[in-house]
Amino acid sequence: MTEKKKTTIVLFSGDYDKTMAAYIIANGAAAYDHEVTIFHTFWGLNALRKDEDIQVNKGFIEKIFAKMMPRGADKMGLSKMNFAGFGPKMIKDVINKHNALTLPQLIEMAQEQDVKLVACTMTMDLLGLQQEELLDDIEYAGVAAYLGDAEKGNVNLFI
Amino acid sequence: MTEKKKTTIVLFSGDYDKTMAAYIIANGAAAYDHEVTIFHTFWGLNALRKDEDIQVNKGFIEKIFAKMMPRGADKMGLSKMNFAGFGPKMIKDVINKHNALTLPQLIEMAQEQDVKLVACTMTMDLLGLQQEELLDDIEYAGVAAYLGDAEKGNVNLFI
Amino acid sequence: MTEKKKTTIVLFSGDYDKTMAAYIIANGAAAYDHEVTIFHTFWGLNALRKDEDIQVNKGFIEKIFAKMMPRGADKMGLSKMNFAGFGPKMIKDVINKHNALTLPQLIEMAQEQDVKLVACTMTMDLLGLQQEELLDDIEYAGVAAYLGDAEKGNVNLFI
Repeated sequence: MTEKKKTTIVLFSGDYDKTMAAYIIANGAAAYDHEVTIFHTFWGLNALRKDEDIQVNKGFIEKIFAKMMPRGADKMGLSKMNFAGFGPKMIKDVINKHNALTLPQLIEMAQEQDVKLVACTMTMDLLGLQQEELLDDIEYAGVAAYLGDAEKGNVNLFI
Repeated sequence: MTEKKKTTIVLFSGDYDKTMAAYIIANGAAAYDHEVTIFHTFWGLNALRKDEDIQVNKGFIEKIFAKMMPRGADKMGLSKMNFAGFGPKMIKDVINKHNALTLPQLIEMAQEQDVKLVACTMTMDLLGLQQEELLDDIEYAGVAAYLGDAEKGNVNLFI
Repeated sequence: MTEKKKTTIVLFSGDYDKTMAAYIIANGAAAYDHEVTIFHTFWGLNALRKDEDIQVNKGFIEKIFAKMMPRGADKMGLSKMNFAGFGPKMIKDVINKHNALTLPQLIEMAQEQDVKLVACTMTMDLLGLQQEELLDDIEYAGVAAYLGDAEKGNVNLFI
């Protein structure tokens, strides 16, 4: 019995396009029978936010962060050519035209393929994000758990 | 007979400085006798565009993308301190002063050293880029081919 | 006797948040008993700048770069939500509130844990940075030395 190959991705970025790239690679690796982990940290945590407004107690700065950061994958901007929000619309138009998957669909597919979605607890604290605000069925861990996966990884990326 | 070491780079970024870093590492690895692949996706595809205006049929959004994106490596901006295009000029000035290689020269060197330059077909479709618009002697592939290379890679980077 | 695991990070970015992520991973890996190298290139060199104004002879463009680039880790901006410098203040406030480590403290810890901090000599030349301007007890090397480390690395990241 051979061990499964492993892919780990640190998703730091909160951009629609970079997050798409992360999830396309993750889904490809899962289809290739890799064990795949996406470790969401800093702005990458926003991909895991629910899109409704969840009422939780927060400090002042945490409220500002919560307000300014996109609530879920569908609300993210582009890393390039964002054009005040018109860029994401253009990308979504061409995704539909080519029958490609949108980012929320890519995330759903990753969950169906058992890609391990992890939220970094340390940066959740910093940005004031709470578990109630994030998607169900994800895991919570710190950098030690990430390194435990990555040191056995065949493909390790920081996005 | 030992197998060659392998380096793979996903070039997602369309910035002059990040693309320089990608090609400097790629050329270094090739000189070190690695098998090297650069997989160009999203804005990274612009490094492979020819600098002339190629006439191809495109939809409306694809025309806007083609217009707004830099036509070739030499036209790219910087990820930092771009100063409305003055930053790239400054970088090119210091490159000349230090007899370093410009980005188009680094790409040419990579081709001479048999670095495998791959254009991601899925994102070409999304951004409406066609083979006629890209450099000659490059390869076309999808994420499965990238993963096939990367899972055997000694050095895998996402830039 | 088993060999130590190895982690290498190319730190290209000059943002406070990305540099934090790099140093958190590096410190985690060092605590996990990895041999860790951070190879600072392009804007990532700014994390190694001393915060005082060092008098060195420079050309005109090099003076502009020196002036415009942040002098040390504490002066860096954020990759997202920088808000003209208010973002970094917010991040530092929440770091204090949660008794987390600031970036200068993370760099100090890395030095205490013998993380190898390397400045890329080629990009130092390009940006006109001189050894007197950078922290003590760091190493100077080029891409060949980086690749020598990375090809034996278990975890290799580009940040």
